[in-house]
Amino acid sequence: MDHEFFMQAAVEQAQKSLDEGGIPIGSVLVIDGKIVGRGHNQRMQKQSPTLHAEMDALESAGRLTAADYQRSTLYTTLSPCSMCTGAALLYKIPRIVIGENLSFMGEEPLLKSRGVEVIVLDNPQCKALMQKFMQRHPEEWAEDIGEPHQAYD
Amino acid sequence: MDHEFFMQAAVEQAQKSLDEGGIPIGSVLVIDGKIVGRGHNQRMQKQSPTLHAEMDALESAGRLTAADYQRSTLYTTLSPCSMCTGAALLYKIPRIVIGENLSFMGEEPLLKSRGVEVIVLDNPQCKALMQKFMQRHPEEWAEDIGEPHQAYD
Repeated sequence: MDHEFFMQAAVEQAQKSLDEGGIPIGSVLVIDGKIVGRGHNQRMQKQSPTLHAEMDALESAGRLTAADYQRSTLYTTLSPCSMCTGAALLYKIPRIVIGENLSFMGEEPLLKSRGVEVIVLDNPQCKALMQKFMQRHPEEWAEDIGEPHQAYD
Repeated sequence: MDHEFFMQAAVEQAQKSLDEGGIPIGSVLVIDGKIVGRGHNQRMQKQSPTLHAEMDALESAGRLTAADYQRSTLYTTLSPCSMCTGAALLYKIPRIVIGENLSFMGEEPLLKSRGVEVIVLDNPQCKALMQKFMQRHPEEWAEDIGEPHQAYD
């Protein structure tokens, strides 16, 4: 399994989101070596509080069987938050490949405690996209992870 | 706080979903005594694997501030799965009122371990809706919670 190959497809989604004025996080769902769903954060584009990149990728993949999910791998440019972690646990996705967890450390310990394989690539493109965005738009980033920001709270 | 009053609004959403040919689970998000979001399971209606009732209610409420979420209460007719639990944890929703957990026991221990107040009403309407649906459509119900079913797997 070429993790960097599929991570590149997730990075393309993150870049696409940034180009649309959105938060640069991307994700793809892979089954049997094929990308079956692609997504990116849709907070700004669709005014959505639930379509994080991973959720958007799952939504893009449509309704799958339990067996499909149970042999899939979820790629995401950033360590998954509680919600996206919960979605992966719901569908028993056995493996999550993460671009980076420096900008945000998600629920990796919970994933591991439930038997999910967690692989962190420490990808410099993923880090660069997030670091730049977080510096320029701290209020949107705070909102995306449910944190207060003086611009709103 | 009249929990049964708001649960009734969630039950109405569950009934609406059933009438549409969907899975009868409903949810409302309440802030300062007012319903700010209403939703129901959209698996059948929108072919959605992520729009469980609670997610649909959050989506319906739109983009809220961290302070809004942190004084909200999420009502749901059925004990929340990992995904909906994770969404509540992401936004630090402090209280979840559950119609029933007999048909499905969700991630209540995880919610409690993170300090979320969990109130189970043991509402007979919620139980009747789910029990009837699960008997008539076991394959759709299995799919909704990521479980295999012989019709698919």
